[in-house]
Amino acid sequence: MNDMNKVGIVGYGITPFTKDDKKIESILLDSAKELFKNNQKINRDDIDAVLVSTNNNSKYLSPILSEMAGIQPKIAHTIESLCNSGTNSIVSAYSYIASGLADMILITGAERYDSPGQILEWDNSRGEYKHPIFWASIFTKSYKREFSISDEQLAIVSVKNHKQAKENPNALSKKTYTVDDVINSKKLTEDLRLLNCSRPCTGSASIILASEDKAKQLTDKPIWVTGIGQKTTSAGFTKNNSFSSMESTKLAGQTALKMANKNSKDIDVAEIHDAFSVCEPMALESLGFSVEGRGMDMINELHDTNNFKINPRGGLIGSGHPLGATGIAQTIEITQQLQSNAGKRQVDNPKVGLVHNMSAAATSSTVLVLET
Amino acid sequence: MNDMNKVGIVGYGITPFTKDDKKIESILLDSAKELFKNNQKINRDDIDAVLVSTNNNSKYLSPILSEMAGIQPKIAHTIESLCNSGTNSIVSAYSYIASGLADMILITGAERYDSPGQILEWDNSRGEYKHPIFWASIFTKSYKREFSISDEQLAIVSVKNHKQAKENPNALSKKTYTVDDVINSKKLTEDLRLLNCSRPCTGSASIILASEDKAKQLTDKPIWVTGIGQKTTSAGFTKNNSFSSMESTKLAGQTALKMANKNSKDIDVAEIHDAFSVCEPMALESLGFSVEGRGMDMINELHDTNNFKINPRGGLIGSGHPLGATGIAQTIEITQQLQSNAGKRQVDNPKVGLVHNMSAAATSSTVLVLET
Repeated sequence: MNDMNKVGIVGYGITPFTKDDKKIESILLDSAKELFKNNQKINRDDIDAVLVSTNNNSKYLSPILSEMAGIQPKIAHTIESLCNSGTNSIVSAYSYIASGLADMILITGAERYDSPGQILEWDNSRGEYKHPIFWASIFTKSYKREFSISDEQLAIVSVKNHKQAKENPNALSKKTYTVDDVINSKKLTEDLRLLNCSRPCTGSASIILASEDKAKQLTDKPIWVTGIGQKTTSAGFTKNNSFSSMESTKLAGQTALKMANKNSKDIDVAEIHDAFSVCEPMALESLGFSVEGRGMDMINELHDTNNFKINPRGGLIGSGHPLGATGIAQTIEITQQLQSNAGKRQVDNPKVGLVHNMSAAATSSTVLVLET
Repeated sequence: MNDMNKVGIVGYGITPFTKDDKKIESILLDSAKELFKNNQKINRDDIDAVLVSTNNNSKYLSPILSEMAGIQPKIAHTIESLCNSGTNSIVSAYSYIASGLADMILITGAERYDSPGQILEWDNSRGEYKHPIFWASIFTKSYKREFSISDEQLAIVSVKNHKQAKENPNALSKKTYTVDDVINSKKLTEDLRLLNCSRPCTGSASIILASEDKAKQLTDKPIWVTGIGQKTTSAGFTKNNSFSSMESTKLAGQTALKMANKNSKDIDVAEIHDAFSVCEPMALESLGFSVEGRGMDMINELHDTNNFKINPRGGLIGSGHPLGATGIAQTIEITQQLQSNAGKRQVDNPKVGLVHNMSAAATSSTVLVLET
């Protein structure tokens, strides 16, 4: 890494995650408006770039959002990479600022509950199994078999994340569940029940990234992006080395932690991409929080002690999963945590946080390290 | 601009532009394969990012292209900004390299002839006029009226660009036309004839950008990206200040030329976004090649002297316009020109080239300056 400019998060805005049937343009604008309400020092004329993160099929959404929000940016485009579109946009914004091409950037992710990103038409190796529940089933079966984990044990992920979502006013889920509720919920496949799944929803999340000077002018509590790691191993999940660990997450995590000069023990709070229950222990293991096969031990301990360290906002399972907004919503949660601004979800005095956001059976992962 | 790493173009591949009905995944792969054939020193394992530029509705195309091409990139996503998606991707790649996040990046733009980017659903101020021919008609009427230009005079743009396309083996157009052919071609609106329009088509274009060290290892003739300018003034064309000049092009051009420490007189060869005939003189004026209202004087002189300085490959009108591939195809043309590798289209010994790529009635523009 050569003399990079420091890049900080200086503002954020987020909407409730719902099943609302609204136009994508309005959804995008909603969180941008929240952002400008939350940080009134931000001058729209100083915004050099507007990046939109979405799987929506509408075109030219960044200029449309810009026009609606009263911004005339230099750089404006949409970024799509299925479920980790959000963190891809954050990394792009980071590079624009670090390179000196931009000083301040608005990133807005939004999705409708009926996003076309939920089905992958391309991967013929899946046959008819285009919906993510099919890879999730294979992952679940493989993980349970390899590490002797029961459905009851795995259900704790959903129980914990719904419990934590109760303290998140923007979460889609408004209920808590027991292990019995999870294992008796609607059967989707042999290995997957409804409450093991995150649910697609309508939602929007915006953040502003800025250069060091700008960040210090605009907030007393900038949160710095100190580590970035990304990896794409394939597009089709049948190319994965393993169905019980996440290679791209492993590589992205190593890169991000190395860049930040940290290791997983230094992480005080983390957002983990729990698209399905099994993803949480698998990702914790691949990120080095736990040895292989023992991710559930950590999750159980956190759950028993009511410690919100992992997925404080309720993760994707509790918060809902508006694809293009998810990575940005995760980053907002860690920002709020590091600013000691997370209300009843607040973890005790965190200094270093991590965001894990992935796509399509972990064929692609992004990991970010954030610090006060 | 702070100590930026130098960024160079080290390879390119392009397909013929056609009306072929092929899958977007195959179209993308076609130009990437050409690229690797053209520069066999490039090692796929050294590619840090794969950016796809398209308006196609398919998701996750960058990981899909990566898997098909045998690449496992760190960064992988699709970038969309209608007709200047291509140069938006190039600027993103530039910033990844300049920031130090990446060393070598593949950028592939592709489109099908029936791209959904041809219709903008959003702008209600247009009423039913969602197709670009409606703004093009208003621009044409306004430009002709303000500067007393006749249909016959404007037809020269199409005559010249079809003539130049004859020397471009990849061009969609295989014919030359007279002024009479243009003004007697099918009437689309009161001010627009068929031969005044670029045509959507199927096509693909790939380039590789690399850091200075990498670029010098991989080619004897790297072409450097020395100037970058972008501006989005609005999304809806009715917000334009004027219908006979291009504000976003003016601002993007000034930024790019300033960054490269050049002025328009230094430019030896340029690709101009002639989506419609009227766009060529308007853009030349907005970029400072000509005073306002006199762009056709320059175009006439070039045409009369058979000088290919502007749109040597035939522009969008002659080459065809595969939306997401266009900005990359333009950049390849300038690269070939600066490498003295443009065959019968070769301009005399150019050192400095310019790419002008825009979207949606010039509501957004990108300008790049390239140098040997």
